[in-house]
Amino acid sequence: MTSTAQAAPAAFTTDDYAARMARVVNDAVKAGLAGVIITPGPDLAWLTGYQPHITERLTMLVLSPDREPTLIVPRLERGDAEESAAGPLLSFVDWMDGSDPYEAASTLFRPDAEFGISDAAWALHLLRLRRAMPDVSYRGLSDCLPMLRAVKDAGELARLAAAGAAADAAYRDIIGTRFAGRREIDVAADLAALLRQHGHEQIDFTIVGSGPNGANPHHEAGDRLIQPGDPVVLDFGGLRFGYGSDTTRTVSVGEPGPEVRAVHEIVRQAQEAAVNAVRPGVTCADIDQVARKIIADAGYGDNFIHRTGHGIGVTTHEPPYIVTGEAQPLVPGMCFSVEPGIYFADQFGVRIEDIVTVTEDGVQRLNNTSRVLQTVE
Amino acid sequence: MTSTAQAAPAAFTTDDYAARMARVVNDAVKAGLAGVIITPGPDLAWLTGYQPHITERLTMLVLSPDREPTLIVPRLERGDAEESAAGPLLSFVDWMDGSDPYEAASTLFRPDAEFGISDAAWALHLLRLRRAMPDVSYRGLSDCLPMLRAVKDAGELARLAAAGAAADAAYRDIIGTRFAGRREIDVAADLAALLRQHGHEQIDFTIVGSGPNGANPHHEAGDRLIQPGDPVVLDFGGLRFGYGSDTTRTVSVGEPGPEVRAVHEIVRQAQEAAVNAVRPGVTCADIDQVARKIIADAGYGDNFIHRTGHGIGVTTHEPPYIVTGEAQPLVPGMCFSVEPGIYFADQFGVRIEDIVTVTEDGVQRLNNTSRVLQTVE
Repeated sequence: MTSTAQAAPAAFTTDDYAARMARVVNDAVKAGLAGVIITPGPDLAWLTGYQPHITERLTMLVLSPDREPTLIVPRLERGDAEESAAGPLLSFVDWMDGSDPYEAASTLFRPDAEFGISDAAWALHLLRLRRAMPDVSYRGLSDCLPMLRAVKDAGELARLAAAGAAADAAYRDIIGTRFAGRREIDVAADLAALLRQHGHEQIDFTIVGSGPNGANPHHEAGDRLIQPGDPVVLDFGGLRFGYGSDTTRTVSVGEPGPEVRAVHEIVRQAQEAAVNAVRPGVTCADIDQVARKIIADAGYGDNFIHRTGHGIGVTTHEPPYIVTGEAQPLVPGMCFSVEPGIYFADQFGVRIEDIVTVTEDGVQRLNNTSRVLQTVE
Repeated sequence: MTSTAQAAPAAFTTDDYAARMARVVNDAVKAGLAGVIITPGPDLAWLTGYQPHITERLTMLVLSPDREPTLIVPRLERGDAEESAAGPLLSFVDWMDGSDPYEAASTLFRPDAEFGISDAAWALHLLRLRRAMPDVSYRGLSDCLPMLRAVKDAGELARLAAAGAAADAAYRDIIGTRFAGRREIDVAADLAALLRQHGHEQIDFTIVGSGPNGANPHHEAGDRLIQPGDPVVLDFGGLRFGYGSDTTRTVSVGEPGPEVRAVHEIVRQAQEAAVNAVRPGVTCADIDQVARKIIADAGYGDNFIHRTGHGIGVTTHEPPYIVTGEAQPLVPGMCFSVEPGIYFADQFGVRIEDIVTVTEDGVQRLNNTSRVLQTVE
């Protein structure tokens, strides 16, 4: 067994979910909302442990200070919902195919009030709710309660650390394998297999961007044969115990040329400085600026074409976003990526990324492999 | 190689996508809309072949008679979008992290107009569009252009037939394997492997509902050991060449008891009659009613707790819905499931499902395995 093998953390309990729901109601009231509407996906999973397939059939949890947590659910899925970890905390309103669930839901809403709603709720559901209740208004949770899931508790931090350790183990294994002469998609498949082998239950992305493909930050992996001398961006992640990993290293196939070496060093310094700037009270925008200034001062500001990072938890992309203009101060328990990059169209790209968590007095990295430019065969 | 092995159908061409976009604009104008907004997911895949990851970053295609098709896209994903099959047909408006894509998008909209929007567009995006353009209004595509993707062309029908043939082959294989004494999840894993072996690139569900678990139509598969004498609901599907399969058979482990045999025969008759009622001009509600009446007349009306079917295409659940109140008449080229069922809580369930397509003068099944009650070991 590898060092990343470990027993699953203790399952979240009904009490854990009760505490999360209470916190959300409390935050909603403070934000001037009458309550929040949570639809299937990461918000519902985090609040209840219930993870139904996302379909056109309306399922939604209504949380408000006026009533106990209430789940609108298709009748044929009610049994599964009742058996979820938070089932004992919920009251249920079920509906049959052919009936109108939006009318049924309308009894749960205070008219003339404003509710937060899950970012990824279907527009169709929102528009039909508006039709059933024209006087209720809505705000996306990212706009009214953006930090809903941002501050992680101990059980969540343990899962994120386990996911990071597994991603590190996958990286240590992949750099021992051959790159030159193989297709990007074959290396990507190996990386996915390694993530699974080290305990990931879901793979979200395994980017292998060799040579010019590394210049496209969202290139995944293609048929290109990796060449000696290529820099290769490896950006990979998924879920372990329900929580995300997301790591990037840029390696060199054989000895790097002087330009690759120089650019890698600038990115490394930018990433290092941004990570070291993380502590409670500093804003997200500050962290972005630390990385951006180092890259701009080196003359590559126009080649750093994305934000510095994003939060991570039950999803691999969530608030807080480490981006220009984000005035949110960091709070202990927040977890996010720090991932500056420099890209030259049609030539190559370099990115270095770790997940970090904000501690009481600073920062802890959840990825701990070397950030020095690594050569591979 | 099995009879389901076959070369991939010819790829959809830029002309195919141009024709689809023109049809949507035409339908939108007829429906009184100023245009439609298409977000990543099945609508965008169907209209352009472009399938980015769905994230918080705004990507949307605006189709209207006033301008050429325009894609709002994050700058770092623009290259991928340009390279998609429909790339040459599109004009692009890109945006950088930290800028406001909703303001950028607002130049593409006619104020005071009504637009259709993809059902699964994120509520967050819709609410931010409303904030940027308070006078534009929206309707979900299922409410204004529900039949957008419902009528399939020849290339789509070929893919759906290929997916159905592969699902049939997987079923023929699975009934030759042992059920008694194995866990549901093990049979489900075998079924998933068989679907892949017969050419599915994605598995969406492999429901194995034995004994009492069959009474929950959305039970997936659990730890329960399958018992001799159990009826077992097998409901499985996914994507092949980008198009869906979805098939159900209920089998008996050894000889069935008289009640299971009788209930299965009623469901078989209801399914047979509903399929045979399919032809152009008949409404979706009519088809539902044919199945429902046979089951109700047999005394089990309250045990048929879901609609009779749903459309299928680039997703495994889409309009047309075969449900009470759906007045949409059938049109040649529509594809949908016919899947009546009877359920007894804590005892067992029976469901039989085929995908069918509406032809010029009737119906064609895309699933062709026996619907007689099959015994397995």
